[in-house]
Amino acid sequence: MRVSVIGLGNMGRPIAGNLLAAGFDVTVWNRTPERARELVARGATHARSVADAAQSGLVVTMLSDDRALEHVVFAERLIEALPQGAIHVSMSTISLALAERLTADHDRHGTDFVSAPVFGRPEMAAAAKLFVVASGPQAALDRCDPLFAAVGQRTFRFGDAPRAATLIKLSGNFLLAAAIESLAEAIALVRKTGVDPHAYVEMLTSTLFAAPAYKTYSGLIADERYHPAGFRLPLGLKDVTLALEAGRDLRAPLPVASVVRDHMIAALAQGFEDADWSVLGKLAAKNAGLP
Amino acid sequence: MRVSVIGLGNMGRPIAGNLLAAGFDVTVWNRTPERARELVARGATHARSVADAAQSGLVVTMLSDDRALEHVVFAERLIEALPQGAIHVSMSTISLALAERLTADHDRHGTDFVSAPVFGRPEMAAAAKLFVVASGPQAALDRCDPLFAAVGQRTFRFGDAPRAATLIKLSGNFLLAAAIESLAEAIALVRKTGVDPHAYVEMLTSTLFAAPAYKTYSGLIADERYHPAGFRLPLGLKDVTLALEAGRDLRAPLPVASVVRDHMIAALAQGFEDADWSVLGKLAAKNAGLP
Amino acid sequence: MRVSVIGLGNMGRPIAGNLLAAGFDVTVWNRTPERARELVARGATHARSVADAAQSGLVVTMLSDDRALEHVVFAERLIEALPQGAIHVSMSTISLALAERLTADHDRHGTDFVSAPVFGRPEMAAAAKLFVVASGPQAALDRCDPLFAAVGQRTFRFGDAPRAATLIKLSGNFLLAAAIESLAEAIALVRKTGVDPHAYVEMLTSTLFAAPAYKTYSGLIADERYHPAGFRLPLGLKDVTLALEAGRDLRAPLPVASVVRDHMIAALAQGFEDADWSVLGKLAAKNAGLP
Amino acid sequence: MRVSVIGLGNMGRPIAGNLLAAGFDVTVWNRTPERARELVARGATHARSVADAAQSGLVVTMLSDDRALEHVVFAERLIEALPQGAIHVSMSTISLALAERLTADHDRHGTDFVSAPVFGRPEMAAAAKLFVVASGPQAALDRCDPLFAAVGQRTFRFGDAPRAATLIKLSGNFLLAAAIESLAEAIALVRKTGVDPHAYVEMLTSTLFAAPAYKTYSGLIADERYHPAGFRLPLGLKDVTLALEAGRDLRAPLPVASVVRDHMIAALAQGFEDADWSVLGKLAAKNAGLP
Repeated sequence: MRVSVIGLGNMGRPIAGNLLAAGFDVTVWNRTPERARELVARGATHARSVADAAQSGLVVTMLSDDRALEHVVFAERLIEALPQGAIHVSMSTISLALAERLTADHDRHGTDFVSAPVFGRPEMAAAAKLFVVASGPQAALDRCDPLFAAVGQRTFRFGDAPRAATLIKLSGNFLLAAAIESLAEAIALVRKTGVDPHAYVEMLTSTLFAAPAYKTYSGLIADERYHPAGFRLPLGLKDVTLALEAGRDLRAPLPVASVVRDHMIAALAQGFEDADWSVLGKLAAKNAGLP
Repeated sequence: MRVSVIGLGNMGRPIAGNLLAAGFDVTVWNRTPERARELVARGATHARSVADAAQSGLVVTMLSDDRALEHVVFAERLIEALPQGAIHVSMSTISLALAERLTADHDRHGTDFVSAPVFGRPEMAAAAKLFVVASGPQAALDRCDPLFAAVGQRTFRFGDAPRAATLIKLSGNFLLAAAIESLAEAIALVRKTGVDPHAYVEMLTSTLFAAPAYKTYSGLIADERYHPAGFRLPLGLKDVTLALEAGRDLRAPLPVASVVRDHMIAALAQGFEDADWSVLGKLAAKNAGLP
Repeated sequence: MRVSVIGLGNMGRPIAGNLLAAGFDVTVWNRTPERARELVARGATHARSVADAAQSGLVVTMLSDDRALEHVVFAERLIEALPQGAIHVSMSTISLALAERLTADHDRHGTDFVSAPVFGRPEMAAAAKLFVVASGPQAALDRCDPLFAAVGQRTFRFGDAPRAATLIKLSGNFLLAAAIESLAEAIALVRKTGVDPHAYVEMLTSTLFAAPAYKTYSGLIADERYHPAGFRLPLGLKDVTLALEAGRDLRAPLPVASVVRDHMIAALAQGFEDADWSVLGKLAAKNAGLP
Repeated sequence: MRVSVIGLGNMGRPIAGNLLAAGFDVTVWNRTPERARELVARGATHARSVADAAQSGLVVTMLSDDRALEHVVFAERLIEALPQGAIHVSMSTISLALAERLTADHDRHGTDFVSAPVFGRPEMAAAAKLFVVASGPQAALDRCDPLFAAVGQRTFRFGDAPRAATLIKLSGNFLLAAAIESLAEAIALVRKTGVDPHAYVEMLTSTLFAAPAYKTYSGLIADERYHPAGFRLPLGLKDVTLALEAGRDLRAPLPVASVVRDHMIAALAQGFEDADWSVLGKLAAKNAGLP
């Protein structure tokens, strides 16, 4: 089964690698072609262009943001190059507005657009343990099933409107950001009476909040370990902004996201550009007058 | 080992029952004595007064709020009645200010004050599966260990300042409220594109948010099942208010708690006095224009 | 006409002075009697006790907070000492709950409670230029008219429920705090592009916002002149908290007040205890990364 | 003196009219040319195209939003058509990002970009009573002085960076929105005790808040007179969003703007698309459970 992967960043590379490992006939393309070297050594074909990559008929894009995906789709003309009946699977976190536009554009062109963003960090991608959230035409999703199975531990389907999966991914990142901010405030509060933050988060995450997200982020905040960043603050702000824009367009206010956004901006203003987005913990500590 | 339990509400009764079952010599007291009947039938002694109950030397109070505890301690003169070296274990959720005042008052009187609030609902209390968060003088905590073991599945100690445990309980309830509000907003958002909320929360709680708190509350919101209330909205508002007052007194702002508080007040203004505090889900849906 | 003034702080002293100047037969009382000296030199009588002061039949209280007024009313037994038909005029900013309690207590005792808080700073009090907001039984308000005329430039009546005037005063202080916070954010924003804040606020306050409140506070923020405090930050936090508590009790959320409260707490945590409440301007500047 | 006016909406028409009245040689252009008829009858020339209008060397644009201005500048090629040394005066409320881009583009082309947004509603435009906030190269501002004098009552200059005036306009609209929201909350609060909102706002606006903005908006809220809209809610949301985006790009959080934005979205979700932006008063009333 042929598949192309466009975008070989921290997520795209392990995804392409797992597809190779699962026996797919993989073509890759990246703006800076050096990133493709190791995959080519393992058997992948390097496309000369986006249009070339489109010939496989099943194209995965995994790019950093709307702008990068727009470049591939519009400037590099992905849609025009896709054969009739081909599928474009967008695995990036993109805006609701772009998902809607791409749905219409592919539809007009006689190709299918599938939105299939993933939850999971690069380590989980490498281990083929991503969670895939997919929506799009049912037949297209069926064709993608082996692909999803090769890169993730479980696929969740959300109907035939591609924007649903896009929105769910944005809402999930909002929920992560909300959990980080809430933990940041709670940890700063208890630290004011001298409570050991490690003991505190150990209690939380072995009782009510025994969830991966809470373990990861409460640990980073208790440790004040904001570097190196697993997910940089500006990326966090980008995603929370996309959630808020989706909320505005759909007429659904997200007041907790607004609080998070304001704090992210304050943290950036104070120089935490390169920190992990859990640096909200440091901002909360500063606001509480902690050293 | 003798122990008295003052306050036989939804939590106090199962706690006293588990102490009986564990072989403690249990004395009970409740303002409305009918509540004691079943425990007396099982072997508990009914004290004629708070002062009478105080004679056991180890007194647990489990009351609904500051006012009820103040009544027992000041109007019914618990502290004066305690023998030298006795321990008062407060398991209720109370204000930081009252915890500080009781610490000083017991200290002056030559008795020990232990703060040991619990996480868990009445079913967990009945099953002796509570989580106990305890702080106070170390020797007193040691003496309480068998008591905690009889009512809970695990005890977390937080040093010798009683207010620490009180604050941690308040912060935990704040985190629950923050999770409810965040879920309420996220679920309203995805519903605006027609996503099935049950499928959505099933995805969330089997991936990033596989925690008891998220399962319980996202389920209630997806089901729009706000009655009967497991924890009534006015009680939720009381606890979030106590967290905010603690934050004010300690100089630690809690902006997410402020958002939750504002929404709880709006929900009460709109008539949800008897609903579960997860009715924040209904408020978020109304704010998003959902039917 | 006889009148007693209890509480001779920055506001009570000029109010008593203006009553003397207007020909009233003035009795004064203050916990620290030195504060009365100058007024006595000008013809006032110093009461030996609150009960003594109550004999005038028309008693003004102007105290710093609920606690001080509760002390005068309950510990010093003002109500019991008032003759039948006497009037107690509370000019302090107090809680809605205390206004309600005092209304009921005076009613039971056969005396009238009038709530008549004022807008205006000490200079305005000295110049008899206060704005008086009054509510209470109509006949009592009529009797107070000469008193209000002697201390203020205008009296606004709000019906016969004393709590109305109390609430209006709290809402007015909330609106001031909201204006300060909004200006703080706007000024920090424009400073980020190098706009001169003085030119900016001169424009605002000579166009859309040509109001005394905006002139005063935008000037302080543009000048970064937070000392000496005209109104100290902890007092501002107290009043915003009273507004929020009134909103909670009446079921009316005040989200902007919540934002202000969080920022005031953060400013206090960062050491601005002695600054004017316009120091919210400094907090906004810090949050924007300004030096 | 020749001048062209592009955009003949509710603001552009009276501006062009006042320029005619002041003796300018006025050329006009509008996408729907009918709007120009009355001005042509009074002596204006109707340009056949944007490029044609550009020939006057002094071009005012007064358009509804970024998109409309981008259309004129990029699709209709305004910049290319401007003679060397010409001036483009943008009087619309636009984004900070577009102001920055236009500054660079005009600079490259050898023409001057002046940002000169105005405060004032159509009646004030008709009466030549606008307030003009202008920034740009000093010589260009000097050349524009007679133009500004013909349309406004006062011009405020803010240096040579065009984005300054753009940002100041956005910040001013934010301050208006913040005042509306604060009034909405305060009025809902006092209404909960039966206070007459008209008496309340009369008191506010004759004392601390005796400013045009407070008079206008508190009156609309007290009257619950949200139609016809002086400034429609979606336009208010657009401007608050532009202020927030500017704050994000400049790293200056605006938490009060975030609260306003959330409430505007909730009001839109509940069907107030055609209401004046003061309809925030209705939302606050609903949140307080008022009928």
